[in-house]
Amino acid sequence: MSTSWTYRFAQRTKVIKSSVIRELLKLTQRPEVISFAGGLPAPELFPIERFQQACQRVLAEKGACALQYGTTEGYAPLREMISQNMSRYGVVAAADNVLITSGSQQALDLIGKLLVNPGDRLLVEAPTYLGALQAFDVYGAQYVSVPIDDDGVQTERLEEALRSGPKFMYILPNFQNPGGVTLSEGRRHELVLLADRYGIPIIEDDPYGQLRYEGQHLAPLIVADRENLQRDDGYRLGNVIYLSTFSKTLAPGLRLGWIVAPPEVITRLVQLKQGADLHTSTFVQVVAYEVARDGFLDEHVKKIRQVYRERRDAMLAALQEFFPPQVTWTHPAGGLFLWVTLPADIECQTLFDAALQQNVAFVPGDSFYATGDEGRRHLRLNFSNAPPERIREGIRRLSVAVRSQMKRPELIAL
Amino acid sequence: MSTSWTYRFAQRTKVIKSSVIRELLKLTQRPEVISFAGGLPAPELFPIERFQQACQRVLAEKGACALQYGTTEGYAPLREMISQNMSRYGVVAAADNVLITSGSQQALDLIGKLLVNPGDRLLVEAPTYLGALQAFDVYGAQYVSVPIDDDGVQTERLEEALRSGPKFMYILPNFQNPGGVTLSEGRRHELVLLADRYGIPIIEDDPYGQLRYEGQHLAPLIVADRENLQRDDGYRLGNVIYLSTFSKTLAPGLRLGWIVAPPEVITRLVQLKQGADLHTSTFVQVVAYEVARDGFLDEHVKKIRQVYRERRDAMLAALQEFFPPQVTWTHPAGGLFLWVTLPADIECQTLFDAALQQNVAFVPGDSFYATGDEGRRHLRLNFSNAPPERIREGIRRLSVAVRSQMKRPELIAL
Repeated sequence: MSTSWTYRFAQRTKVIKSSVIRELLKLTQRPEVISFAGGLPAPELFPIERFQQACQRVLAEKGACALQYGTTEGYAPLREMISQNMSRYGVVAAADNVLITSGSQQALDLIGKLLVNPGDRLLVEAPTYLGALQAFDVYGAQYVSVPIDDDGVQTERLEEALRSGPKFMYILPNFQNPGGVTLSEGRRHELVLLADRYGIPIIEDDPYGQLRYEGQHLAPLIVADRENLQRDDGYRLGNVIYLSTFSKTLAPGLRLGWIVAPPEVITRLVQLKQGADLHTSTFVQVVAYEVARDGFLDEHVKKIRQVYRERRDAMLAALQEFFPPQVTWTHPAGGLFLWVTLPADIECQTLFDAALQQNVAFVPGDSFYATGDEGRRHLRLNFSNAPPERIREGIRRLSVAVRSQMKRPELIAL
Repeated sequence: MSTSWTYRFAQRTKVIKSSVIRELLKLTQRPEVISFAGGLPAPELFPIERFQQACQRVLAEKGACALQYGTTEGYAPLREMISQNMSRYGVVAAADNVLITSGSQQALDLIGKLLVNPGDRLLVEAPTYLGALQAFDVYGAQYVSVPIDDDGVQTERLEEALRSGPKFMYILPNFQNPGGVTLSEGRRHELVLLADRYGIPIIEDDPYGQLRYEGQHLAPLIVADRENLQRDDGYRLGNVIYLSTFSKTLAPGLRLGWIVAPPEVITRLVQLKQGADLHTSTFVQVVAYEVARDGFLDEHVKKIRQVYRERRDAMLAALQEFFPPQVTWTHPAGGLFLWVTLPADIECQTLFDAALQQNVAFVPGDSFYATGDEGRRHLRLNFSNAPPERIREGIRRLSVAVRSQMKRPELIAL
């Protein structure tokens, strides 16, 4: 035999397009580039001292537990704390309803593993979170997309999509990634009613819910669902599985998220998680609990909100100042992202190349669409990772690239 | 609609037998029980002070990096260190050949995701590691088992199994879990030759390789494979994917393992890992690197070897002292486990109940077989988690349970 298994593996494996974002990020890591591409939190806000204290305390007082194998469900005090914190948002979830995951991404993977069989159709927003598509694709998912507008997913266009029999709806209600928009209260109620009428569950992905910079908090879908079902004599559990994470409130490098679901679903997810990684790092869980406890996380989130609000405002002001009137953008009430719509004659991929020449970067919109080519007219901008003056300079550079791409010459003049 | 999606989900989901070990561990956590059931390292050996220093240094000097998102491949200095360490065992692997995983369990899951389609047959040892079966089962694996003896998997019985066309061979060459046996040098060479002849790759799972208490280190299969293929003009990459972990040398609570594979395979695994959890905790990786660096891990492993060797010897001596002659057991040269064979008239499950009455626990052997019912005559004993005197007392109790189960009354007298 003249060739090994690996050689043949490499020959027959189709060259799969590496994640667009991965490749982009490499291009954008040159120091002269102002990158609005990643979804990175501001590292200068990481509570380093609090982490130092927590590590010392955890290792001194319970090192043997924190470094040992743990249960698949997660560290009990952390699950309890999450349960308590969520109850303030109206979410009725005992610690037993909470499964700790290795980031929200693992939650998406486990849900794909549990619910998606090859060829299953999933209902997603257009645009939607790229990482969710990556997680579900592996299990052979097909998609039906429903467009969003400034009030989130267009519920009046949902029924037709629901009639095609999707396995579940994947919805980001708050400060959507990438759209930056928030599902209105009225649509939240429509959505849970539709879920119940069609018997199709909702995966509610809420990584940014606590990062609201203006307006009133809106009840999560899992709460709206419960309120709806409780009016019904036949109430049995619910139609919503809720996901969140510590990535945007504490630190993404922990890889620490959670799933809230009825016990029957948690039991199955625990079995799958056991096969996937046994459990999430005990050390990370115990340290994160020590950092977050005693109200620290709430105070810390207030600080994040203040800084990110300034950065969002800086980006909105710079867009207003520099961008031509043919370009529009969303006004996110929270979160990390803002979504730009280009005039019909500009393609996001060619704009990306022009922007890199100006040393500024973003994520082209087409990565965020499960179906169709609507994405080529959009781009996603992140505003959490750079200070206001750098944001302003980046948007100025980007406006130069945008104008260079506009077909009618009279519009190029600044 | 009178019932929710979750209600119907719970109704139609078959009650899947929860992992036997999970359920067992609950029973064995009463303080009066001496448990040989888990595969837990000795927590008193965790290098707590070194972890404290590492956490302080990491947070003070590179907290912003350690708490931020990282690359899916893993923390570059850690990959480099693994590459260096492995080269001392003859493994030729650049840092680019190393993918950091969230424990070895995730490596098994990613390999299942990459290579196993529903109905694919996998060649496994009988017995084999339960967690691997859990990982592969999810992807619809079927199995063909080849028995082990004191020299590891019986290579003379491999060819028939290979002719049935398995997707890969899953092999634990060193101090096998649960068998405690080690694949002989001769069989290692036969195995890689067979892999090459049949074009069927080997997944080499080596969590315990550094924990050898006697005898000479044997080259891993990935090294034997390379030596074999280099004699061949047609050498192209290789037939072995190698897995290992820091769980048994540093601490399992980190959830930190790695895969060594050719770049083509790593590229595909990275894409799958990105969808599964984006990356392994940056914080854990940077801290583990700081703990292990500058030769600390080597010195630490020497200490572990010494302590575990004493415990293995205590268990072997106690078995010799207390057990009836109809019971036999393996003599592991390393690792954490020892494998007991019962007389034909004792079933491991009924023995488990009798043992619990004596306040001692183990894992019944039937959990470790992918096919057949051979396992009911076996049990797995862990010797790393209890000091020698507690091991002796546990084996004494277990011998009482064994004798109580033996059919012929004259053997019951101690």
